[in-house]
Amino acid sequence: MSDEVFHPAIEDLPLSKVLAALADPARLAIVRAVAVADPDDGLACTLLPEQAGLRLSKSTMSHHQRILRECGITRTRIVGSRRTLRLRREELDRRFPGLIAATLAAPAEPVGTSARRPAASA
Amino acid sequence: MSDEVFHPAIEDLPLSKVLAALADPARLAIVRAVAVADPDDGLACTLLPEQAGLRLSKSTMSHHQRILRECGITRTRIVGSRRTLRLRREELDRRFPGLIAATLAAPAEPVGTSARRPAASA
Repeated sequence: MSDEVFHPAIEDLPLSKVLAALADPARLAIVRAVAVADPDDGLACTLLPEQAGLRLSKSTMSHHQRILRECGITRTRIVGSRRTLRLRREELDRRFPGLIAATLAAPAEPVGTSARRPAASA
Repeated sequence: MSDEVFHPAIEDLPLSKVLAALADPARLAIVRAVAVADPDDGLACTLLPEQAGLRLSKSTMSHHQRILRECGITRTRIVGSRRTLRLRREELDRRFPGLIAATLAAPAEPVGTSARRPAASA
């Protein structure tokens, strides 16, 4: 296994950063899809659009995946040309007890209908 | 009691919007301060900077309070010249079980040190 991309240490993560990463309907859909994948195998990135029900450009999908990874929510594994995602569930549960459970328990929302930046509508 | 300002219906709130409102160290500090105030009396806005430990301009404080109100997290009551804030705890617990508890249980973070917009650092 290689693990070439940056992953932050969980103890360095402020709550606001994790919340900001989650505060997007598309990223919430990705988190939901990754959460139900086999924790050992992870979810292949090629299957992510279908599993998450997202019709987004490849670059937009990559952007969302990068935010989730850089904010400590997912772990990306790269083996050869295969890239898989896992939820950092145990680590997140340790640092922010109940947060991921609450996120996954919340009503799912359609992608593209809610404001990403509430400040803009204020 | 007058209640002149806009408050969204809790059932209209998407999770992403609530998370975006919470995804800021200053707003998290406000939520923590309001959460420990007497639920009947609420927290007087004049006491908010001290109770939340925030040294921000009046306009920045107002901005944060507006975001929290418009995203369903707090309720503002205006009686005469007195303005008080309450956490919409019961409503939020009903719509997003565990979310506020997880938010309040998370380690507090210093204001001004974490990225509000992870996209900018990606």
